[in-house]
Amino acid sequence: MTAYSCMNTAELEHEYTQVLNKYESCKAKGLNLNMARGKPAKKQLDLVSDILTVMQTPEDCFDGTIDSRNYGELAGLPSARAYWADVLDCKSSQIFVGGAASLNMMCDIVSRAFTHGLLNSPRPWCREEKVKFLCPAPGYDRHFQIGEFYGAELIYIPMLSTGPDMDMIEEYVKDPLVKMMWVVPKYSNPDGIIFSDETIRRIANLKPAAPDFAIIWDNAYCLHEFEGDYVPFPDIISLCAEAGRPNMVFEFASTSKITFAGGGTSCMAASEANIEYFTGVFGVQMISYDKVNQLRHVKYLKDKAHTLEIMKRHATVMAPKFRCVSRWLNHEIAPLGFAHWVDPKGGYFVSLYTMPGTAKRVWQLCKEAGVTLTNAGAAFPNSYNPKDDHLRIAPSLPPVEELEQAMEVLTTSLKLAALEKLLNK
Amino acid sequence: MTAYSCMNTAELEHEYTQVLNKYESCKAKGLNLNMARGKPAKKQLDLVSDILTVMQTPEDCFDGTIDSRNYGELAGLPSARAYWADVLDCKSSQIFVGGAASLNMMCDIVSRAFTHGLLNSPRPWCREEKVKFLCPAPGYDRHFQIGEFYGAELIYIPMLSTGPDMDMIEEYVKDPLVKMMWVVPKYSNPDGIIFSDETIRRIANLKPAAPDFAIIWDNAYCLHEFEGDYVPFPDIISLCAEAGRPNMVFEFASTSKITFAGGGTSCMAASEANIEYFTGVFGVQMISYDKVNQLRHVKYLKDKAHTLEIMKRHATVMAPKFRCVSRWLNHEIAPLGFAHWVDPKGGYFVSLYTMPGTAKRVWQLCKEAGVTLTNAGAAFPNSYNPKDDHLRIAPSLPPVEELEQAMEVLTTSLKLAALEKLLNK
Repeated sequence: MTAYSCMNTAELEHEYTQVLNKYESCKAKGLNLNMARGKPAKKQLDLVSDILTVMQTPEDCFDGTIDSRNYGELAGLPSARAYWADVLDCKSSQIFVGGAASLNMMCDIVSRAFTHGLLNSPRPWCREEKVKFLCPAPGYDRHFQIGEFYGAELIYIPMLSTGPDMDMIEEYVKDPLVKMMWVVPKYSNPDGIIFSDETIRRIANLKPAAPDFAIIWDNAYCLHEFEGDYVPFPDIISLCAEAGRPNMVFEFASTSKITFAGGGTSCMAASEANIEYFTGVFGVQMISYDKVNQLRHVKYLKDKAHTLEIMKRHATVMAPKFRCVSRWLNHEIAPLGFAHWVDPKGGYFVSLYTMPGTAKRVWQLCKEAGVTLTNAGAAFPNSYNPKDDHLRIAPSLPPVEELEQAMEVLTTSLKLAALEKLLNK
Repeated sequence: MTAYSCMNTAELEHEYTQVLNKYESCKAKGLNLNMARGKPAKKQLDLVSDILTVMQTPEDCFDGTIDSRNYGELAGLPSARAYWADVLDCKSSQIFVGGAASLNMMCDIVSRAFTHGLLNSPRPWCREEKVKFLCPAPGYDRHFQIGEFYGAELIYIPMLSTGPDMDMIEEYVKDPLVKMMWVVPKYSNPDGIIFSDETIRRIANLKPAAPDFAIIWDNAYCLHEFEGDYVPFPDIISLCAEAGRPNMVFEFASTSKITFAGGGTSCMAASEANIEYFTGVFGVQMISYDKVNQLRHVKYLKDKAHTLEIMKRHATVMAPKFRCVSRWLNHEIAPLGFAHWVDPKGGYFVSLYTMPGTAKRVWQLCKEAGVTLTNAGAAFPNSYNPKDDHLRIAPSLPPVEELEQAMEVLTTSLKLAALEKLLNK
């Protein structure tokens, strides 16, 4: 195969005709496939469904002397706080255990920041002339939607191979209206990269002008390797404390992709002062999150080491799917030289950089051929990608057979959109 | 026994000496008893712990074709929506199923009203010069705390034997800054009364000046009879619709006192327009609440009729405790004529009206003798009861033997505080 950039117009026209024929034959299959969201596959959910039976009797419901079935323990059962401290390598006193979704706690933090302020806020954010959030992108669309919902100005920070562009971030935080930054530091959504040690060090050592600048450190994929061994990751809580801003970071994790996406448990990790402050704030809305489910998870997952064993089961399902994506892209697209991507070793996504100006068209071509992808641009603040060159692939849900079909459609669409662009069709 | 009002000073002094001796002997026992919160007893939790085993296999996790273990179905599983519609006598389309705490959804409604506004709000409440909440009292302290947290002015509305004073409410809602009212309409917390048909009709027919006036209709005790048969209760959603203000009411219910206080599920019922609006709003913070637990509850509770059977089991534990409270009060206090209370047939509390000006003193005397009650005044907006004449008794948690001891302390303290007052001690 020849790179498109090395073809003359006649060759491109020839290629176009061939690709168009291929696309039409794909379309004729009448597929209905979905790679839009990072949903676990049924097979993965089945692999962990033993969790349903770890609590059977009233006696099973006790965490020491605490009855998980009754009210109380707003910050979480002691055993659940200890579990998360083990996973995130911090202290139990730095853990607040939440409900089924860590996103809900992130939104609560933002909501209360706007109406009441954070621990070190001079005033509630709604009393600021304007509030700005730093959004390394491509990133997690639901993070950005929370910022949009509260009317924050979202500032696009490019993602590099080491993590977000720290030069830009260090500049931006000099603005006292810059109040928040959202990151997924390990197997970033969707690039699948791990922030470099240098990036993490620079983040922990930020000296923002806003005394209440907060980092949402969404460690959603902290244990989520599907290729190779577990990669240790530093504890951001202690790094920020060592750098003199202990209250600057809120870390989140959940079991949504460890046990059940529809019935997991989650946690927030932060400085003891933040945990105390937010235990007060959350005490207005809650008596406690679901402690029976907290205990069910502790009994099933036990500790970090045992959880990593369970993650190896998920890897047996996940790895073949990511290999399928990689194989199609490397075989069909790499030689043509107009697109690039990252082959991740963990997380839930593949970040695909199309020929600039064609991502939306690729999305539309896939849609018309029965393959639903996450909206082009969704991974950017305000859903706007100025280069129109990015798609997020979520291969976890479909079985490999379906994925093969979907990747045929996707690679064909990638080519077709590129050729349309090159030939001004 | 003679009523205190019929005793002369010498008789009161004699009584005081006797009561003081009794109090000192109570105190000498070194009790440590708690009647502060409406927590279910361990025996009740044990009676419903079969719920732990109703879901055991992957197949058990399907609600029709929907896998409860995966993401999706933000408004709740179809079967869970149908279950709550059966319980509350409304439509499935009027149900949004939440997490472990209905209080959390109430707080979310208020939070979003302040930052974004409700469906019919001309502007977010934070942009109003001031916002006022009507607080029939005694009421649920956690309701009032939400209002306080958001800086609303809380307006005290007296509770009558038929429910809140509707004459006052009809007057107050003429003020466009009056935006919300909080009620527990069946077995009200803490009076334990059921709002009369006339009160409910007048509430549904309110014509508030604020187009976004909202009623929090916390139907926390909708199935919670412990004496006698289930008392049917009208569907407030359709009553408000018939009266021409379909979006005025948000109803809440939960299984906190049906299954597990620490691991239940909850719902909001409202007009379809409100459900649609809040499904959008909640979609920013959630992918879905815990659907595995929703399905677990549907499988265990089945429907309203079966749930009422389960409530009869709770009644076998609850009724003897309320009878114990009633017996002590009727035997020790009623003849003395200085206090009154309601003997409820459902709910979780007894509202005790002490001699005016003595409730705080009774609380303190109980505390010093090892019996913790809910803070005096807690059931009033801003925790301030101008008459200082109210205590909330929560007899559900302690076993009857402990309750006997606690009631001896309480009745002795009631007398002692009254005598201190009458004798200016």
